This record gives sequence, C-alpha cells and structure tokens, in this order.
Amino acid sequence: MSTTLKFTALLLALSLCRGLRHDYIDNYIDNYIDEVTEEEAELVAQPSKYGSLWPLPQKVQLSEVSFKLTSSSFRIVDAKDSTAGPSCSLLQDAYRRYYEYMFGIAKRQQLNKGRRTGPSELTELQVWITSPDSECDSYPSLTSDESCESLPHSYHLHRVAGIQLVYEDEYGAKSINSTTISDFPRFAHRGILLDSSRHFLPIKVILANLETMAMNKINVFHWHIVDDQSFPYLSRTFPQLSQQGAYHPYTHVYTPADVKMVIEFARLRGIRVIPEFDTPGHTQSWGKGQPDLLTPCYSGSKPSGTFGPVNPILNTTYDFMSQFFKEISAVFPDAYVHLGGDEVDFTCWKSNPDIQKFMDQQGFGQDYSKLESFYIQKLLDIVTTTEKGYTIWQEVFDNGVKLKPDTLIHVWKGNQQQYQNEMANVTSSGYRTLLSTPWYLNRISYGQDWQGHYKADPQDFKGTEAQKKLVIGGEACLWGEYVDATNLTPRLWPRASAVAERLWSAKDVTDINDAFSRLSVHRCRMVDRGIPAEPLFSSYCPHEYKGI
Amino acid sequence: MSTTLKFTALLLALSLCRGLRHDYIDNYIDNYIDEVTEEEAELVAQPSKYGSLWPLPQKVQLSEVSFKLTSSSFRIVDAKDSTAGPSCSLLQDAYRRYYEYMFGIAKRQQLNKGRRTGPSELTELQVWITSPDSECDSYPSLTSDESCESLPHSYHLHRVAGIQLVYEDEYGAKSINSTTISDFPRFAHRGILLDSSRHFLPIKVILANLETMAMNKINVFHWHIVDDQSFPYLSRTFPQLSQQGAYHPYTHVYTPADVKMVIEFARLRGIRVIPEFDTPGHTQSWGKGQPDLLTPCYSGSKPSGTFGPVNPILNTTYDFMSQFFKEISAVFPDAYVHLGGDEVDFTCWKSNPDIQKFMDQQGFGQDYSKLESFYIQKLLDIVTTTEKGYTIWQEVFDNGVKLKPDTLIHVWKGNQQQYQNEMANVTSSGYRTLLSTPWYLNRISYGQDWQGHYKADPQDFKGTEAQKKLVIGGEACLWGEYVDATNLTPRLWPRASAVAERLWSAKDVTDINDAFSRLSVHRCRMVDRGIPAEPLFSSYCPHEYKGI
Repeated sequence: MSTTLKFTALLLALSLCRGLRHDYIDNYIDNYIDEVTEEEAELVAQPSKYGSLWPLPQKVQLSEVSFKLTSSSFRIVDAKDSTAGPSCSLLQDAYRRYYEYMFGIAKRQQLNKGRRTGPSELTELQVWITSPDSECDSYPSLTSDESCESLPHSYHLHRVAGIQLVYEDEYGAKSINSTTISDFPRFAHRGILLDSSRHFLPIKVILANLETMAMNKINVFHWHIVDDQSFPYLSRTFPQLSQQGAYHPYTHVYTPADVKMVIEFARLRGIRVIPEFDTPGHTQSWGKGQPDLLTPCYSGSKPSGTFGPVNPILNTTYDFMSQFFKEISAVFPDAYVHLGGDEVDFTCWKSNPDIQKFMDQQGFGQDYSKLESFYIQKLLDIVTTTEKGYTIWQEVFDNGVKLKPDTLIHVWKGNQQQYQNEMANVTSSGYRTLLSTPWYLNRISYGQDWQGHYKADPQDFKGTEAQKKLVIGGEACLWGEYVDATNLTPRLWPRASAVAERLWSAKDVTDINDAFSRLSVHRCRMVDRGIPAEPLFSSYCPHEYKGI
Repeated sequence: MSTTLKFTALLLALSLCRGLRHDYIDNYIDNYIDEVTEEEAELVAQPSKYGSLWPLPQKVQLSEVSFKLTSSSFRIVDAKDSTAGPSCSLLQDAYRRYYEYMFGIAKRQQLNKGRRTGPSELTELQVWITSPDSECDSYPSLTSDESCESLPHSYHLHRVAGIQLVYEDEYGAKSINSTTISDFPRFAHRGILLDSSRHFLPIKVILANLETMAMNKINVFHWHIVDDQSFPYLSRTFPQLSQQGAYHPYTHVYTPADVKMVIEFARLRGIRVIPEFDTPGHTQSWGKGQPDLLTPCYSGSKPSGTFGPVNPILNTTYDFMSQFFKEISAVFPDAYVHLGGDEVDFTCWKSNPDIQKFMDQQGFGQDYSKLESFYIQKLLDIVTTTEKGYTIWQEVFDNGVKLKPDTLIHVWKGNQQQYQNEMANVTSSGYRTLLSTPWYLNRISYGQDWQGHYKADPQDFKGTEAQKKLVIGGEACLWGEYVDATNLTPRLWPRASAVAERLWSAKDVTDINDAFSRLSVHRCRMVDRGIPAEPLFSSYCPHEYKGI
C-alpha cells in the first residue's frame, strides 16, 4: 500500500508560546496526509520500537506506512495559516538546521527544481505556528516553557513525525514512517551548568554544546561564568575585573560581543542563558581587579595578605554590586540571574577585627550565618531593583534569608535522603525549586553511571501534589576543575542526555533497557553531527567520530 | 655575557643501538659551544626548575646562558662523524618533526638562506649517531632498549639541551638555555595497551596516540586488536574472521595496508608494535568466521547454540592456530607477540560431553585449568616455531603452564599486596615480568588519579636485586568498553604520562609537587601540538585546545 499512495506534505503545528522552541521543531512534524485516514495507515503498536527517539515524546504511535525523502525535492515551508513565516529569521534558521541534519551539508547544492516526485515521496514539511503571538525576535523564558508544558493541543497534531524518525532504508534512501506524536515537557526548566572559571571554555566549545543541548531538548544554559580561579567576563563597567582576574586579559575573556553571540546562538535554539555571579564566597578572582571588595584576613593582629569572601560591612561593596548587577541585568536578557550564595567559609570573617566589631554592633553574636544573611538580603534587594528574578543555591534558604516568593531554590547538597528532605522542606515553605544533587556530572566513575542519573526523579520526595508542582525542573552540573576544551564534550554527552530525558519525558518512562537502546542510537546521531559524545558500552557507530 | 658570545652549533650524540629512538632525539641535543667552557657557562643549580621536562632525564644541569633560535636560520644536520646521515630516512623524518615542534608548521616556508645570524644565536643542531650500526631501516626491539639503558656515555654528551627546553622569552623569541643532560631509561619496556575490539579505533586515532606516546617516551604499543566483541584484523589467510567478526567488514577493519602504516609510523618514532591475539577465552568474535573453532556449549544433553572458549580437543583448532600465527609472525615484525590467556571461563567446557570425555581420557579429573594448560602449551609450541617470543597474562603462569625461560609474564590482577606478591613469585621463578595492575587507566575516578599511577613502582616488592632486574617495565592499559574515538585521547593523556615518567626516570624521582608542575606544562605542550590532553586541575594553557 505504501508504494502506491502519494503523499505530498508534512505539517508541523506549533503552539509558539514565547519564542519558537528548538525542541518543538526537532521532534514534531505533523505528517498531514490528504488521502489516508488514521485507520487506513495501519498503525502498528511497537512498544519497544521507538527507534532513536530521545528524549521520548509523551505520546508516540508508529505505523508501517513509509515515505521517501529526497534532498532535491524536499522543502520546509510555512503553512498557510501559520502566524510566523519568512520574516521570522528564527524559523528560517531552524529550517536550514533541520534540512542539514536530514540530508547533510554536502547535498545542499543538488537542488533540482524541475524533478518529478516519485511515488510515496514526501516533498514538503509545512510548519504551522498556531500561537497568536509568534514572537520570533524575543527570548525564551520560564513562562514560555510553562505554557508549552500544557501543549496537548493534540487536535493540532496529526500523524506527527520528527527529524529523529528519518532513517535510511536498505538502499540508503532517506525514509520516514507515518507517526503520530503528541508531546510536551514534564518540567519547564531543563538545564546544564558549565563552568568557565576553573578552566576557560573557548566560545567554539560553548556553541557546540549549545547545539547539542538543543538536540537533547535542554532549554537552559546555566553559565557559571566566574569563580575563585578566574574572572573571564569582560565587564564594561568594571573592565579591571577581567583585566586582572582572568587567566589572560585578552585570550581568556568573554568580550561583550562573545556574550552576545552565545545568547543569540542559544535563543535561536530555544535555550535560555542564565548567568551565575556567585557571591559572597567563590570570589577570589574578583578581588584582583576590585580593591576593597574582599574581606582582608588577619593572622593574629595583622592582615595576612590573603582575602576571604566579599566584605559585607562596607558601603562600597553594595555600591559596587548595584552597578555591577545593573550591567548584568542589561547584558543578559533572561528574566533570571543566578546569585550563588554557596559554601561561604567563615574563617576569614572570624579573623578580621572590623568584622567582629560589626557582628557585635548588629547583635549577631558568633553566628556568622547571620552575617551571610545580612549580605545576601542586601544583595537580593539590589537585584530586585533590576527587575530580575533570582535563583540561589540552597544554603541561602537553609540559613533563613528572607526571600521573595518567586525565588528559585537550587538544591545541590547531600545524599539521596538529604536532598529529598531538602526538596520537601523548600517546597513546603512554598518556594519553587530546581534539583541538581544527583546530576553532578563532573563526578565521574567507572561504568554506566548514566543509569543512576536516569533513575533519579526530582519529584521523588515526601510531599503534597502542590509541593510537587513547585519542582520546576533540574540541572546537570559539569563543574570545571577537571574539564576544559579537551574533554568537556565527551564527558557531558550522552551522560547529560539521561538527565534530559528524565526532565522531558513522562514520569513513567523508566525502562532502562529501552533507554539504553534508544540512547545508544541517539549518541551515534550526535557523533554523526560532529559531536564527540562518548559510548555507553562496547558497540560501534556506523560512522565513527572523525576527530581524535 | 650571553648577548656577546657567539654560539653556532648544537650537537646531539646518540648511541644508536638498534633503531634510532624517538626519545633520544626529543630530549638530547648536545649543545656544543666552541668558545665557552663549562665553568664560563655559570651553571646554576635550580633543583625545582626543570621547567617542562617530561619524563625527567636521569641527569640535568641547567644554566642561565641562553641562545636564540630562528626558523629561518636554524638547521638540524648530521654531524661529521655520525654513522647515519641523509640516507637515513628515519633520521630525516625525525628532523622534520622536531623542526615543526620547535617552530610550527606555518613558518616552514620562511627560509632565508642569505640571512646573517645574530649574536647568541644558535644555528645548528648537529646529530651525531655514535652507534657503529645505525640500522635506520630496522625495527626497535626489547634488546635495543636494553643496550640503551646502559647509555651513560656521558663523555659524548656535553651541555645537552632538548626540544622540551625551547621556550619563548618575553618578546616571543624562541630561546634555549645551555643545559647538560645525560639520560637513559630505567626500564626497557614502557608500553600502552589500546583495545580496538570493544570499540573500533580509526587509524587516525591510533596514529595520533602513537605520536603522543613518542612525546612521552613510551616505546611499546600493545595492540589488543581483537576480542569477544569484534575482530577488526583483516587476515589474508582467514579473511572470513573480519568479514564475519568485525563490527562492519569494510568500515570497521584494519586492512594489511592499515597495519603496515601503523607499524611504520610507530617505527619512525622508536615504538614497537606488539599485537595481542588473546586465546582461548575472549574469542567470541573469532567463532563467527571460523566454524568449529569455539567450544559448543550444552544445555542439558543438547547444544544450546552458544559457544565458549576455543575448542582445545580438536586437531583442526591447532591447524588453524598454526596457519594464523604464521601470518601474524610475518605481518608484525616485533620479536614478541602477546598471546593473552586471561580469564578463561570453564562453564561452557564443563557443559560439553565431548570435553568431559577428553578430560577423563587425559586424566585431568575436574581440573579445567589442566585443560587450559593443555591448550596453552600446544599454542606456545606453535608460536615457538614462528621464532617469536611471547608475552602472556599472569594466569598462564599461575596455572603452572610450562613456559620458555624468555617468556614475559604480564601481571594485571589483584590489589597492591596481591600484585606485589605476584611480581615476587614470577621473578623468583626466574621469569621476566611486566606490570600493569596499578595502571588500568580505563578505571576512571573523580580527582587527580594520576598521582596514584605515579606513585606505583614496579620494583616495589619483596625480592632480591636479581629478581628486581627481571622487571623489564610496565604498561598502562586503556581497555575499550567505555572508550572510542570520541574520548580516548583525553582519557589517556596526561594520565599515561605519569606512567611514562615512572618507567623512564630514576627510581627516586618521586616529588609529586615537582611532577605536578612539570606535568601541567607538559600537558599544555601536548595541547599545543594538537593533542586533547585533559587538565590535571583548575588552570589554563596559553593556547587552549582548538577542537571540541
């Protein structure tokens, strides 16, 4: 049957919330077939035959009806009623990307406009943006994600097929089976943290990993951009910070143009860029270019020459932070900024007589977490004036700092029982939360550790349904002590893909054998696209990685 | 002083044992200076200032006398009395490689023959091969290594400087300080095992890692070429082995031309290629293309359809092995072949009634290690006729198989105490041995595990001096279950560099801080040469890796 029917168009229907999301294009091609009804298409239930779909969509029905695709005839076009079209550069950029994924860059020149299409050939992908406000030029946001989460407008989605469904038949012909997919993410915030301070990450590495994030429906790049070791962010307001604090003031910095490029590259792929400027700890590199910002440590009655966390007792500190975060809020368009707040070492504060005096005056006694809270509260007030929301590491919550109700608490500490307790505590206090503890991908071990990452579930704690709804997602973290351009990409992928499916797919998608099978093929697809994603276990890819 | 003296030549003196060794060229450039005596050169003892020398030479004396080098004037030439010269392609190939390491490929065109040389400029490296038999066209061997080990012909080596000593001064000028080096390896066999069966390793990856082995004075590539998972070796005699047993018969095989290329590339860098064809276990992939080679396993009274180790009771098995190893001994020029012999699972043998009958006939009772020994002894007899020496994994020794006195026993099992006992046992039986147990680099863990690799010493066991002398070296092993082209190189380097120094440098070179400092710079040098060697810890390289 499939050889005689003539299908001419695929239709992609999208609720284009706020910013067209890469992941919607990647997987959701509505295969619109004039002459065939659902019954005729002989849908075959193949429960373990999801091929290489990753992350697994919420609903998939595969059929045996197959179509051929040719690079010379196949077109991606805007559907008649689409609310976004040729003027939407985000969309056009995506069309090119998907065309190249499907047919390879080499074949782009072989267009053949006069060619007659063959039987069972699919010649068009119609992209139908259904959202009234297409917002092709705006940035993705947590809100846009949330409205997409409620996307089961499945009356729009008939016989959906994704780029991931394209395969080569035994003669090498690009083919796709008629497939019904209806999908939405389980969590709105699906992030990856990269650390460009312990090691500088060249822009090329960041962009390649943004591209790979998009292939895995990761929608947040948490850019842990500065830390103790180096300050590569080139601030227009305080250029001395990178001039003095970067590993090198020219070769190891992110210029304003670099940052802009990263943000735009991410935007085109539906990825938010959330920068982290962690204070008051983790700030050694800040002190090099900003005198008096850090607390002088004392050895006995004299300054030792070393410095501790940000000095919380000086007005100049808060003047600096006001100006600095004003710049940050302008440079990074996302509605959130990550303010850190983790691991503040009190040793230096304790040694400093001026700090001790201030503690007395404030009536803090010897409780330095009160001093920490004092600092953080003033910082949060400052950032609130920039009209940004903020994310903070869990210590800030643990220390009882007063927080705005929309603050995101980022859980990263402890063993399984401890982080589950923390998730319960945070949500019972009414705060929204993000989980990272089980997903510290920098912690490597021998064997298939992706399975552990895959099994962790961020809603797996004792709490009410209302509490569970306050879990907006999670982030895989790849801290940079042992990672740079030489090994970041294979260490991150496909291990982060396991987290990506956990955060995207339905809660009951937990079959580890099925996941192994799909993820193995998905990792070869990443390799095929030039990404050195490492193997899960003994195996091979049809086309091995071309680099070294 | 250094600005007024005029130095015109460096002189490299080499005892070119059997095959010019890469490592001798890499580090040993005898800086021959006409007008300056040793006293004048103001040699300064800088005990922790070995810069980036890796592995650390046996004797180094640095001075402050510096010279400039220009790509336009600098030449590497054959010394007057050298026993090898322009007709030695191995040497000429090495000259090009070192010139490119020093000045980069880009500058090769800028030769300026008419240029006047400046003051304190070094214009020549004279390479003086002192060995009466230069053997430019032969292969490196264990014997050649041993005679090099006794190389302290330091009367030949005055003010030696190495490629690793070249640095850029504050103006970017290539410079080198007058330096006295006298050197030889502590162990003759310094190997790395790569596994091309669990994952196929493209030739490009193998060559890049051979190049990096040479940078680290590793002189043995132990090629674990086939195993259960796949048989990528294309045998001329038994082409069905790879036709049926490789992951893919064309894209995932090593053709005779590929193997030749690997061997020649290695030879030019002083590296021996020792292939491993592991039997009777680890042979699942062999069975696909060679019917009746493997033992049929039984389920009750019937064959289950699965297969076990090589079938040791059929004459056809030994006919096959004779032909096969005749080919191997011709294809691989090294005097040794690794015959495996590890991890034989007796379950299948036990299930098979024919095997049981044979056991009875031979009077083996239920001791299947006697059957294993029966097989191995016949195999060793076969390989002996090919005039190759053999290396075997420790089980063969442990099981009491009769071995030729020159057999190498490869220790790989157990914890520290167990492998030290094994080293003591093997050497007290008079056998030479290689250590790998502490150097299973496939076993990754979080943090600076190179320090553990660095601290292990292969002569650290209870035994006489005579026993210690039977330790000919060791090998770092990177088994392939979790490793392919995407992640092999950064996982291997610089972790294998730690093993390389342990096996090359003097026993008392154990300062971990000094090692950290030198290895950090050495790893950046590898990065500079295009090798994605991963970082040891938070840091940066002047030129970060250009890939992803």
